[in-house]
Amino acid sequence: MTANQVKPIAAIVGAGRTKFGELWYDDPERLLFDAGLSCMESVDKGIHRNQLEACFFGSFLYQATNKMGLVPGHMSKELGLNVPITMTEAACASGGSAIYSACLALRSGQYDTVLVGGFEKMTDRSNKISDDLMFAADPSEFGAGFTFPGLYATMMSRYIYDYSEGKQECEDALAMVSSKNHHHAIKNDFAQFRREFTPEAVKKSSLVAYPIRLLHCSPVSDGAAALILTVPEKASMYTDTPIYIISSQLATHDVSIYTRESITSIKTTKLASTAAFKETGLSYKDIQIAEVHDCFTIEEAMFLEDSGYYKKGEAWKGIYESYEANKGLKHVPYVNGQNELIVNPGGGLKADGHPVGATGVRQVYEAWAQLRGQAGGQQVEEKLDTALCHNIGGTGAICTVHILRR
Amino acid sequence: MTANQVKPIAAIVGAGRTKFGELWYDDPERLLFDAGLSCMESVDKGIHRNQLEACFFGSFLYQATNKMGLVPGHMSKELGLNVPITMTEAACASGGSAIYSACLALRSGQYDTVLVGGFEKMTDRSNKISDDLMFAADPSEFGAGFTFPGLYATMMSRYIYDYSEGKQECEDALAMVSSKNHHHAIKNDFAQFRREFTPEAVKKSSLVAYPIRLLHCSPVSDGAAALILTVPEKASMYTDTPIYIISSQLATHDVSIYTRESITSIKTTKLASTAAFKETGLSYKDIQIAEVHDCFTIEEAMFLEDSGYYKKGEAWKGIYESYEANKGLKHVPYVNGQNELIVNPGGGLKADGHPVGATGVRQVYEAWAQLRGQAGGQQVEEKLDTALCHNIGGTGAICTVHILRR
Repeated sequence: MTANQVKPIAAIVGAGRTKFGELWYDDPERLLFDAGLSCMESVDKGIHRNQLEACFFGSFLYQATNKMGLVPGHMSKELGLNVPITMTEAACASGGSAIYSACLALRSGQYDTVLVGGFEKMTDRSNKISDDLMFAADPSEFGAGFTFPGLYATMMSRYIYDYSEGKQECEDALAMVSSKNHHHAIKNDFAQFRREFTPEAVKKSSLVAYPIRLLHCSPVSDGAAALILTVPEKASMYTDTPIYIISSQLATHDVSIYTRESITSIKTTKLASTAAFKETGLSYKDIQIAEVHDCFTIEEAMFLEDSGYYKKGEAWKGIYESYEANKGLKHVPYVNGQNELIVNPGGGLKADGHPVGATGVRQVYEAWAQLRGQAGGQQVEEKLDTALCHNIGGTGAICTVHILRR
Repeated sequence: MTANQVKPIAAIVGAGRTKFGELWYDDPERLLFDAGLSCMESVDKGIHRNQLEACFFGSFLYQATNKMGLVPGHMSKELGLNVPITMTEAACASGGSAIYSACLALRSGQYDTVLVGGFEKMTDRSNKISDDLMFAADPSEFGAGFTFPGLYATMMSRYIYDYSEGKQECEDALAMVSSKNHHHAIKNDFAQFRREFTPEAVKKSSLVAYPIRLLHCSPVSDGAAALILTVPEKASMYTDTPIYIISSQLATHDVSIYTRESITSIKTTKLASTAAFKETGLSYKDIQIAEVHDCFTIEEAMFLEDSGYYKKGEAWKGIYESYEANKGLKHVPYVNGQNELIVNPGGGLKADGHPVGATGVRQVYEAWAQLRGQAGGQQVEEKLDTALCHNIGGTGAICTVHILRR
């Protein structure tokens, strides 16, 4: 089966975003408003806000950080709409969770056209936020002194030990993930960081939680992203080049890592990607670009294994060899035999930025732009048909996977 | 059309709850766990947790109050399930919003059997909570010094002035709402308050924000409630007496009150109840019991007008006359010509308690128990067929309406 034969769930007929970074002069409603406006302006044949029949928003720390609740009421006022609006919280997967909820709503037949938005406004509380982010971890892990870099450092240490016996090349490979994603962001006008970093520079950056250094970590960011989804039959009202969502999957697992069978793979990535491949009849071989949740570089490596792209314990070798062979290219693909996969063509969470509730929506924005050939300077040169978006919350307690096709 | 001819959206095959009150020794996961367990035990033919295909939770201040986020991850661990779990926040309508999301999911055809849960753990932060509750209001209203009692007091003052020219009987009527709801809770084993209060006692209680006194206000509470919903075709696997949800509606409006055309009615109640009556072909005359969001007594009066039961500005007369004529009865109905409507037969938010994220789910629990004739001491004596549940967030920025039938 090819992607074109799969019955689509939804058509993306518009997408928009703000820049990501330190946006101190914008409040969360403003960020969502700006993303929503650029989203509506992107609709080829135009749309009026009164055509939006329901809205699905996602954010994580808006209460603790922005002293804001009841987003449906705030956004009803901003939009001047009285339609159903729901607000989903799933830590860093809040954006993917909002898209998942919107897809369920379209599948229900109750609505034809809906708005999805994700946002986060973090930088003006960046000294407090490392504690608050631990709301998304087990309280006993917080009590034991863990931070999120600490939790992912535990996974990364174990990965290096289990699968490379501590080889230098494995640490190099995990630094290369960061170098590649920064390289991909150079021409992304929206990205928070647009600088090259060599793997050596990543390995010499400030130590955060061994073996995680500063340049392994996605940043604290502000930003928002928005999508307009319709039922496939209505897509032609809005555009002649819709991008279809052909799978929408969500899986959950323990919020803690100490209770898991393995801490070197993410069970929810396996469950959600397996379900997405089953839903579409596709496999990892059919995916040309993937927006992967690289909150820390080890997470991108685990995705490559959990999705089946590389065998368990071998992603670091694939990353190392692919980077060494292709580092001169505009986009550095992960090569595996006959297959090539470009991951995070716009820079991913690492370089584009990670306003946590916006990230899952930004990923679909980026894939939409790439599949339409409108990704600007960071446009992938090969002809693209199929993309996958992978959004994680916490240390993998929740994962959404969406597969898109042209 | 009668309720029996409407195609149901979902069947409620189980429902459970905790006591509401000051539950200092239970954390939020424990409350949800206890409500979920009593819910599963209520399923007549039994159910195993592995039969739950997705979960929909709702809560408001769990981050600020309980330092807890990513509820899907916490609950995946508690339940031992890896299924899709989403978390909805809509202030005091978080519970209704979770039920609405679950109904969309069942309508989508993706799941047959799902769990819905609402919870809130407020009392151990009760000194801080009046500020945090204002997350669900406009920041300019918070900045101007408003609290939630203050906002509702503004509505109540205006209502008394506009529709009774300040008559004593209007103030009496709004006190009678509280007396009636406390009276209804006397035999409710789960209720936070089980004491009689005369209208005179209500009017002499401590002044909070004129004309609102302590006994006009719903309390700060801890508690949780849970439901198991299935697609109607599967109901008989679990019970021979399912209760059906025949309408599920959600509407939104401005988070602020200063921008609204009227502050003596709630637009979202009108929109959601009108849509629910349209969806079912029913009218207010067909409803026998209503679970109404009496966060303050004025809200119950506004519901009676916004749903069409009394004409605009006349609910207070109906309340006064009905109470005077029926105050000796076990349940005091609102009488309007040929119609009788029992509101909040278990005590409502006022007396049963108001753990905000649990309330919308608790309302459906109560209606389910009443329609099955299993509401214990507070069982309504007349044969019941049709119930309505009305859940409000903020000052009416969001409203859900669910109609249930036997």
